[in-house]
Amino acid sequence: MAMRRLHLLKFASSSALANPSTSTRTFANSAGQQFTTLNVDDKTGIATLTLNRPPANALNAASMSEIQRTIQDLEKSKCRGLILTSASDRIFSAGLDLKECYQADTASLKAIFCALQNLWHTLFATPLTTVALINGHAMAGGCLLAASSEYRIMLPNFKIGLNDTMAGLGVPMFVMDSYTNAVSSRRIAERDLTASRVYSSEEALQAGLVDEVATSKEQALEKAVALINSFEPRTLTARAKTKLLFRAEILKNFEKNSQHDLDIFLSTIQRPEVQAYLGKYLQSLKNRQSKQAKA
Amino acid sequence: MAMRRLHLLKFASSSALANPSTSTRTFANSAGQQFTTLNVDDKTGIATLTLNRPPANALNAASMSEIQRTIQDLEKSKCRGLILTSASDRIFSAGLDLKECYQADTASLKAIFCALQNLWHTLFATPLTTVALINGHAMAGGCLLAASSEYRIMLPNFKIGLNDTMAGLGVPMFVMDSYTNAVSSRRIAERDLTASRVYSSEEALQAGLVDEVATSKEQALEKAVALINSFEPRTLTARAKTKLLFRAEILKNFEKNSQHDLDIFLSTIQRPEVQAYLGKYLQSLKNRQSKQAKA
Amino acid sequence: MAMRRLHLLKFASSSALANPSTSTRTFANSAGQQFTTLNVDDKTGIATLTLNRPPANALNAASMSEIQRTIQDLEKSKCRGLILTSASDRIFSAGLDLKECYQADTASLKAIFCALQNLWHTLFATPLTTVALINGHAMAGGCLLAASSEYRIMLPNFKIGLNDTMAGLGVPMFVMDSYTNAVSSRRIAERDLTASRVYSSEEALQAGLVDEVATSKEQALEKAVALINSFEPRTLTARAKTKLLFRAEILKNFEKNSQHDLDIFLSTIQRPEVQAYLGKYLQSLKNRQSKQAKA
Repeated sequence: MAMRRLHLLKFASSSALANPSTSTRTFANSAGQQFTTLNVDDKTGIATLTLNRPPANALNAASMSEIQRTIQDLEKSKCRGLILTSASDRIFSAGLDLKECYQADTASLKAIFCALQNLWHTLFATPLTTVALINGHAMAGGCLLAASSEYRIMLPNFKIGLNDTMAGLGVPMFVMDSYTNAVSSRRIAERDLTASRVYSSEEALQAGLVDEVATSKEQALEKAVALINSFEPRTLTARAKTKLLFRAEILKNFEKNSQHDLDIFLSTIQRPEVQAYLGKYLQSLKNRQSKQAKA
Repeated sequence: MAMRRLHLLKFASSSALANPSTSTRTFANSAGQQFTTLNVDDKTGIATLTLNRPPANALNAASMSEIQRTIQDLEKSKCRGLILTSASDRIFSAGLDLKECYQADTASLKAIFCALQNLWHTLFATPLTTVALINGHAMAGGCLLAASSEYRIMLPNFKIGLNDTMAGLGVPMFVMDSYTNAVSSRRIAERDLTASRVYSSEEALQAGLVDEVATSKEQALEKAVALINSFEPRTLTARAKTKLLFRAEILKNFEKNSQHDLDIFLSTIQRPEVQAYLGKYLQSLKNRQSKQAKA
Repeated sequence: MAMRRLHLLKFASSSALANPSTSTRTFANSAGQQFTTLNVDDKTGIATLTLNRPPANALNAASMSEIQRTIQDLEKSKCRGLILTSASDRIFSAGLDLKECYQADTASLKAIFCALQNLWHTLFATPLTTVALINGHAMAGGCLLAASSEYRIMLPNFKIGLNDTMAGLGVPMFVMDSYTNAVSSRRIAERDLTASRVYSSEEALQAGLVDEVATSKEQALEKAVALINSFEPRTLTARAKTKLLFRAEILKNFEKNSQHDLDIFLSTIQRPEVQAYLGKYLQSLKNRQSKQAKA
């Protein structure tokens, strides 16, 4: 199946899609603030949101708010489906921006975790049909974005997993629930979440964490578009209601636990041993990057 | 395994099984009102309830009430197991009677949905061991009857699925829960329910939606009887309690959501675009049937 | 992988691990009261708790309290992991001690069921990484101990299952939940629990009830130690929190239902027909044992 013609549309403010006449202007003025690229195919109503915060699409408060806002705008527009992918051909997303979690004050940590919660809620509950096109490693928060979508197509030879416990962090309830909703069984979810299990693309397919492994980004995109197009426009409202009702218990669970999840995150990430680990980890990352730059 | 001798017993009123001496009379007097046939094997205590409302075993308020009443009567009698099947060799059940949902007043729509809820509750919670012998297509409400039984044996080359969203209807909570309880994972349930996925018999086996595919109705019946017979009479009370407790959360969920489910059904089915779709669908069905009649 | 040197430590009182200087003494004084053997590897922090109540590791109030107390003591010590196994090379555990349930007064029955509930709660919620090394048949309560652990390694040619309904007993909610949490799907759980399904080791692997089948106890022990060792000490707190949160809903469910579960157990086990079955069963067991003794 050939890709249909794409109409390129970039925007950074929440008014962009609601008012197309200003969207180009907004794009020009605020390009420097953007962490994503948005393409909307006016013919199919399918939006492709490409994470673009090099080098690892690390999620900070600003980039998560931008993703969330974009989804909310797409919901208000005529869009019917959303494909989430990465501009990098190596990393889908490395998860939360740990640099912004290191030696940070409580207000900043709160901002980053609340941005994650808000983004998650919007993505998990959106009436849009959502497909994650995982064209690179998807760790922790990156894996969460994929698991919260409705369908996952991954390229080969990458890693995916919720490895939160590796950093000394417990897995929050809504993250657990999203992962459990995606994989083939509660058993797999419990085992993986307690073990910070990281899968290869092929293993992830076996565990049900991804639905397909495609041979190229182009093929993956075709599959994603075909899936979204397979639903008749006439049925989309009923489809969205069915999705929301299926996910209702998890969403209710989230509301109930969101303050508790935040408290746990704040108290854990500020522990000396967790901060020490983050410091060491960031240093090793820096060393690796400067080595790569010299090479 | 050979079928044991079946004692044929037909009845239409709730007093039939409780008072066998009147059952034959009732059968003679009210044969024209019946939508099902009931056979009870007095030796094994296994009842076979055959849906018999040609051409498609469409479920209207009256037929659903009859099925429900029959199950309740069987519970009061010495019966231990129930096999649910169809008199047609082509259709198990096409689901709700859409003719009765088209241009109907609110009271009639309410009656049909409440009859579905009541039948579902009785079937899902019955202490009887229940087996669906799916000897034809099982769509929407037909699939629900199968999914709410405890075991599903299907004949080859038929279709089964909860295709509610195709008619523009959201899937009610108790229907979701029954489907999720039957298939191999939440993941499969979410994907199928949002996609109105329809399986072939063979695909349904893979997805766990049916437990066995048999080569003939006779073989399927033998398997069903063997399964029900495999439970020692001494253990049936404990078995029924275990079944009820396993299903308790879904039943509680149903009680909590039943008014909401009804409201959603009423508001959705009365929408002009849904009624327009039903009108077209019923017309196409009529055309097809008159063509078949001429051929 | 070779087993590391084991430091043998036996104790029977709750003060044993907290105060190592008294542990040897306690062992000598109370050896006759013990139903288990405990080995702790000081180097790895892995404890091996061996059920040792011949011939079948039947669980009575005293032995269950002992197991529970031991786990609680290990939690307070520097231990990180627990391997649960049997001294018998034929039976892991036959479940509740039915001799103590036969013609027993209500107080004794209450004591045995509460001891089961308390042991289950401690085992299911323990921050220790738990592995069941199932080196023999694991029936009813024996299967529950395995299912409540985090990982199950079984030796070939044994039987495992929750066959409660065979004795005329319904399956309590927390037992259902533990089983459902272990096997591959709700579907499998409902089918097995209502059918008192008993698996061979190999079938249990297929159903997800056990995670591995090992060729020998030695190999199984190596696998168990390797699994527990695979978690970095730095991550154990986060791991334990993640485990507890994953199991939180089941634990909450338990609190809510524990009085009801007890009431149901008491009323059911005291029924004349259930007592009659127990009497016959115990007599047949006695006959078999005296035959074996003569042979």
